[in-house]
Amino acid sequence: MTTPVAAIQSVRLDDDNNALVLLDQTLLPNEKVFLKLSTVEEIWDAIYHLKVRGAPAIGIAAAYGIYLGVKQSKAADHAGFLNEFKKVKQYLASSRPTAVNLFWALNRMEDRLQREAGRSIVDIKRALKEEAENIRAEDEKVCLSIGEHALSLLEPGWGLLTHCNAGTIATAKYGTALAPIYLGQERGYDFRVYADETRPLLQGARLTAWELQEAGVGVTLICDNMASIVMKEGKVQAVLVGCDRVAANGDTANKIGTSGVAILAKHYGIPFYVCAPLSTIDLDCAAGDDIPIELRKEEEVSTTWYEKPMAPENVKVYNPAFDVTDHELITAIVTEKGIAYAPFEESLRDLMKEECK
Amino acid sequence: MTTPVAAIQSVRLDDDNNALVLLDQTLLPNEKVFLKLSTVEEIWDAIYHLKVRGAPAIGIAAAYGIYLGVKQSKAADHAGFLNEFKKVKQYLASSRPTAVNLFWALNRMEDRLQREAGRSIVDIKRALKEEAENIRAEDEKVCLSIGEHALSLLEPGWGLLTHCNAGTIATAKYGTALAPIYLGQERGYDFRVYADETRPLLQGARLTAWELQEAGVGVTLICDNMASIVMKEGKVQAVLVGCDRVAANGDTANKIGTSGVAILAKHYGIPFYVCAPLSTIDLDCAAGDDIPIELRKEEEVSTTWYEKPMAPENVKVYNPAFDVTDHELITAIVTEKGIAYAPFEESLRDLMKEECK
Repeated sequence: MTTPVAAIQSVRLDDDNNALVLLDQTLLPNEKVFLKLSTVEEIWDAIYHLKVRGAPAIGIAAAYGIYLGVKQSKAADHAGFLNEFKKVKQYLASSRPTAVNLFWALNRMEDRLQREAGRSIVDIKRALKEEAENIRAEDEKVCLSIGEHALSLLEPGWGLLTHCNAGTIATAKYGTALAPIYLGQERGYDFRVYADETRPLLQGARLTAWELQEAGVGVTLICDNMASIVMKEGKVQAVLVGCDRVAANGDTANKIGTSGVAILAKHYGIPFYVCAPLSTIDLDCAAGDDIPIELRKEEEVSTTWYEKPMAPENVKVYNPAFDVTDHELITAIVTEKGIAYAPFEESLRDLMKEECK
Repeated sequence: MTTPVAAIQSVRLDDDNNALVLLDQTLLPNEKVFLKLSTVEEIWDAIYHLKVRGAPAIGIAAAYGIYLGVKQSKAADHAGFLNEFKKVKQYLASSRPTAVNLFWALNRMEDRLQREAGRSIVDIKRALKEEAENIRAEDEKVCLSIGEHALSLLEPGWGLLTHCNAGTIATAKYGTALAPIYLGQERGYDFRVYADETRPLLQGARLTAWELQEAGVGVTLICDNMASIVMKEGKVQAVLVGCDRVAANGDTANKIGTSGVAILAKHYGIPFYVCAPLSTIDLDCAAGDDIPIELRKEEEVSTTWYEKPMAPENVKVYNPAFDVTDHELITAIVTEKGIAYAPFEESLRDLMKEECK
């Protein structure tokens, strides 16, 4: 069984190195449109408007954004070039606050810039392109590795529930939470997947259900408020979610609603797994309270996607894009270097130390 | 402070007694259209398609449906009339399976028919009209009484969360779960209400937010998956919901997602109150497992209300319209005769006994 969806390169550099090519996720599943974005403004806009989304994919897009942003620089000296670099970096960093991969990727681009400081500007530009390409290529390997580790926690025939989209199109390839599902599919695990539709922007309905269906995985779409009944009916043996930022104590920011799913899973005695590239682990955040939560526009809840407004005019809306799942609700955090169990303060630090060696 | 919304008579008999007048709830909040339905088929269709919804309102509509259905009867004798009555009753009973008020109201109409058996067919028709009017009028009093009892559990300034719509338009007037909010509003309680939008048919966004806003109550609309974060942030001091059927042990069927809200409330230590007219209590159902759960069409999740389909074509959808909240998750069940606490098997039986006296 092949996984055709995993063949989609939804975030990549154009062949002539002049543009970022992005699958526009806001148009799925009805239209499959690849955007060609050549300016930093266009890339900022694509991140802000969720044309590209998913913590790893945002990081990759931002890394390419840095490269494309400084590629055309006419700076005559290193100081001028560095100045332009910093402006582009700061601008891209303002696109979304919660996913730490964005900052991780931007910082990694700056580290590379620093390492190449003694070389010519032409060479630095080439190095920045290489770094962005590395970030993309490494993410693919990271996802495969997370997939293998997570698959070791699952059994054939299980029902799995996932929230939002942590799949191929949220990463370089394969996804994080969906990676074990794709690998299991190749190996005949015959998972039954329940995809929360994930209001307000329906990433589960539009993206996860679409990805899994394309790959031939048995997927059933449910509304977010149906997670409780499918768990109660014994249809779910494990929950798998991605994440946007993991604090040092294991508290995890992910798409709004994730904490609710975790509470339900605990109530029903179902294991709750967070699939997290090390790039999403932020040891500088002690706990979830330190993670900034993005508040988005009211219209996303009351109007977006609908034929006509679905709430009374001028009604007040609260629209946080993420919530924090308390570490006590998390059975394990699955990274590319292995599986972390409580106490996460120790297990995550150990995994990160290994990474830095 | 007046509550103008409570003045809406959303389910009533037309002045000439020839039609059921219904506020079409599927068109809210964009259009306020009153339908005039004179045939049983139209009334069945209105119940099935949720033009009228809410357990008490369905019961009232069905009672009027019986009256209008047999009003034109040309039956020459009592046997023929009874036969027509039973056909109409059976047909209306097939419109929705979960809310027990439907059956309660239909049975009550039949009881009245039996009591009037010795009278002329003309007199029986008149009695059936009276019985339907009684059901409507009593529901209004029941709602007010539930509102008073529930209000005694709440404190001024509290944040309240509700799911789906158990308001004025789900009943004869005032609502069940919203009744204490309207009464509190009149008495300066200054509640802040969080309304779950309630996918897939958005009764919270379209109906509850609209009702409360019209009445000047401070209401904030959230997606269902945001209930966890608003509870975590300390914004909610109590949850109030309506119900479609309460089993003898207190297990409660209500709009899909209610059980999830109850689990979250328990996790965060927030009281969870079910507002239940005695007509929704079904002592013939020992426990929640005995309550039939209506499964509705896949399109409600993937297509309805949207500009274009929001899920891939042919994706499998699971769409249960209700779920059962375990009695252990319920702090109290508020009826018109008083507040029932655990063990519900005893407290509900006692309240029902009193009712039968």
